[in-house]
Amino acid sequence: MWWSDDEWEALAAAEQCGMCADAHFLANEHSGLIATTDTSYVRLARNQHHAGYSLVILREHVVDMAELPPDQLSKFWGDAQRAARVIDAVFRSKKIDYLVMGHRMPHVHCHLLPQHAVDDPLRNVNIADGPTFLSSEEFDSAIAALQRAWESSEPPDR
Amino acid sequence: MWWSDDEWEALAAAEQCGMCADAHFLANEHSGLIATTDTSYVRLARNQHHAGYSLVILREHVVDMAELPPDQLSKFWGDAQRAARVIDAVFRSKKIDYLVMGHRMPHVHCHLLPQHAVDDPLRNVNIADGPTFLSSEEFDSAIAALQRAWESSEPPDR
Repeated sequence: MWWSDDEWEALAAAEQCGMCADAHFLANEHSGLIATTDTSYVRLARNQHHAGYSLVILREHVVDMAELPPDQLSKFWGDAQRAARVIDAVFRSKKIDYLVMGHRMPHVHCHLLPQHAVDDPLRNVNIADGPTFLSSEEFDSAIAALQRAWESSEPPDR
Repeated sequence: MWWSDDEWEALAAAEQCGMCADAHFLANEHSGLIATTDTSYVRLARNQHHAGYSLVILREHVVDMAELPPDQLSKFWGDAQRAARVIDAVFRSKKIDYLVMGHRMPHVHCHLLPQHAVDDPLRNVNIADGPTFLSSEEFDSAIAALQRAWESSEPPDR
């Protein structure tokens, strides 16, 4: 069964939102910060079972993508696209999946889940695959490589 | 293991693309046409296990979302957003997931997978849930309701 209305209201409330609380941190329990734009935070997930797995998180607390005004919607996807290109440049993935869900965390965000040579294309995608955690040196090094690629990438042209 | 380069090249070739072949049909094996825009086809999936499950399919054959120019990217997501609002209006879903994958069909498309009261928010999403097929009368009636809601909805303002 889906959340009750009371449960959903609590999850959706900005004051209690876990993403609003920590999406801007350099490092939090779930991820590390790659880049910041006017619209989004781009973060590398700690679970690197799919190497390069990252998130693009809207700065503003909005529960569903259907609510975004056109300019914010365009900028959010421009950020997601730039993040995808950067992940590809660093991790040479076969394909990137773009997954906007938010059942537990109803604050607009997109999971960028890279698929690599070892992945079965016919298997259902799952952001919980693994988990595989890097050493802190490896994680910091991945963040640094992504930051360099981000800085040398083109911002969305609009 | 992921597709070999030869397999991927064959899947990604426009001349052999299943979506290019039938995304514009009023009805095909997988879905029925709800609406057409300059950028996209909006279609209702035949598998209605998640009531309202629809697809937004880019008209042009492009393999990955990272390749879209800004204007086409914005219009594609404007169409997806309008489709989500229309699905909500007709099916009163709890949440809509937006899933861009394309492992078997590398032609940019977004699955709009509604979550309803009966769905467990903690379960991994799966577009293959079910399948549940409607009678042809029920399917046609759902298409008609979505078309009416589409016509009375606001096109993206940009």
